[in-house]
Amino acid sequence: MKILLSGASGFVGSHLLGRLIEEGVAVVCIVRPGSDLSDRRGVPTYTHRGDIQALCRFAEQQRFDGVIHLASLFVSRHACEDVPDLINSNLLFSTTLLEAACRGNATWFMNTGTFWQHYRDEAYCPVNLYAATKQAFETVARYYLETTDINFVTLKLNDTFGPGDKRRKILSLWRDHGRSGIPLDMSGGEQLMDLCHIDDVVAAYVRLAHLLQERCPQIARGQSFAVRASERVTLRELAATFEKVTNVTLPINWGARPYSPREVMVPWTTGKIVPGWEPKVSLREGIERTFAAPMENTGG
Amino acid sequence: MKILLSGASGFVGSHLLGRLIEEGVAVVCIVRPGSDLSDRRGVPTYTHRGDIQALCRFAEQQRFDGVIHLASLFVSRHACEDVPDLINSNLLFSTTLLEAACRGNATWFMNTGTFWQHYRDEAYCPVNLYAATKQAFETVARYYLETTDINFVTLKLNDTFGPGDKRRKILSLWRDHGRSGIPLDMSGGEQLMDLCHIDDVVAAYVRLAHLLQERCPQIARGQSFAVRASERVTLRELAATFEKVTNVTLPINWGARPYSPREVMVPWTTGKIVPGWEPKVSLREGIERTFAAPMENTGG
Repeated sequence: MKILLSGASGFVGSHLLGRLIEEGVAVVCIVRPGSDLSDRRGVPTYTHRGDIQALCRFAEQQRFDGVIHLASLFVSRHACEDVPDLINSNLLFSTTLLEAACRGNATWFMNTGTFWQHYRDEAYCPVNLYAATKQAFETVARYYLETTDINFVTLKLNDTFGPGDKRRKILSLWRDHGRSGIPLDMSGGEQLMDLCHIDDVVAAYVRLAHLLQERCPQIARGQSFAVRASERVTLRELAATFEKVTNVTLPINWGARPYSPREVMVPWTTGKIVPGWEPKVSLREGIERTFAAPMENTGG
Repeated sequence: MKILLSGASGFVGSHLLGRLIEEGVAVVCIVRPGSDLSDRRGVPTYTHRGDIQALCRFAEQQRFDGVIHLASLFVSRHACEDVPDLINSNLLFSTTLLEAACRGNATWFMNTGTFWQHYRDEAYCPVNLYAATKQAFETVARYYLETTDINFVTLKLNDTFGPGDKRRKILSLWRDHGRSGIPLDMSGGEQLMDLCHIDDVVAAYVRLAHLLQERCPQIARGQSFAVRASERVTLRELAATFEKVTNVTLPINWGARPYSPREVMVPWTTGKIVPGWEPKVSLREGIERTFAAPMENTGG
């Protein structure tokens, strides 16, 4: 199996790349100029400088079986100057990659979406502009589904966590406040969390890649799958678990901040999961692996 | 009524601008650097050089009632190097304009779509990548419908014709071959044509602008409308009408070329029309006004 992978410098991408290499998959990473893949020396890279014709020629030469597309720009609440970056990353680059995949006769293209395309559990209702650009790429992809044989599918992620996560997210924020004792104002904390451990996330990608490669008839063209956590808990319950596992008391002032204007109280529930995959890492176990270990092992 | 208009240098836009000025509407045209509006001296223009923050500030200062968005890049069958241009024109610029409209508290935004978003009369099936980018902009617009009060609506066009059309389209091609007598190979000619005269197109925009301005409850947020012709005929029947009106015999070899891979044999039928509008110009009358007049009056 020969794969073109975007987003390998990110949290999910770096874990997935490690796993694909372990499995003996031939991977080429498509990176931006200056992107840091220095910890993965030896993996071939293609630096995309915006030249779509060059990328199409490269794809035609390389004959990839499939493309795994993880690269994305996430902006929670956009400012007006974020609009061009969101369109360029999530629509222009994504369409460029899909065009090249089709020109190179790749068999499949695995896209990455978000639960936030499904606010209030609707077939489509974007939480934010980021989620709207993710959906818009699926809209564009419909053209390629209609006019080529490529199997385009989308894995939709919600929250993810695990070792080596450099993003500023809730668990690392808690770790810092737990250590410093500095009080942390939070919302009411009743929103349900769907937090999937990185090992489960990676397993979903690998499983789906194999199913696509085998042209498994269960994987209909254009389908989406949810990468969901093994359990859903409220933010308050998550904090209680975190306190138990790490043996610290979190200095949280619950209810000191309002919920966000489009706070997701119940994450998307109706998405199907990848056939033959299920989340295996419990929250307790995942937090232990990530935060209870000595600092040197957290990979940050 | 104060309007920001994009695409005023195009065929539909130049006719619409003339009509809006006649009606006494205050219009500002948003143009690209170097865009030719020289025949409309006296109309204020805003030159957009890609700076979204500057455009948002301009929209906040100007307090437009509405935006009419006609600017677009049309590519019938794209080459890979067209992808960035299609995304930039039809998604990046469109989203930039909508963001600015919302920041400036415009009441409404009239978008322009295409019948080609509805291949085989489906709710969404793009004929080509151009149509997919049009649909993708509606996908993005859903975010603004969810999070602001703006009324975003789409007028969907199919073929349009009339005086002053510089685009290389079927009627002017026929005129040229009619004059030169050079044979013209065409397809079987059984595809139905929906060819709307520019006066009817302009009337649909003006009518919808008034309904939006009056906050007419019939115009639901997010709705689409079809701008359809007064009659549908096959391409062969159209040629026969053209021959009668212009009194020339067209040197067409019917069936000498295959139909296109995604030839539209029956244009979108299920779109609603703008309340209170209907197409009035018959094909015969429209062709007369455009082609039967002496050359000096065709506006070309």
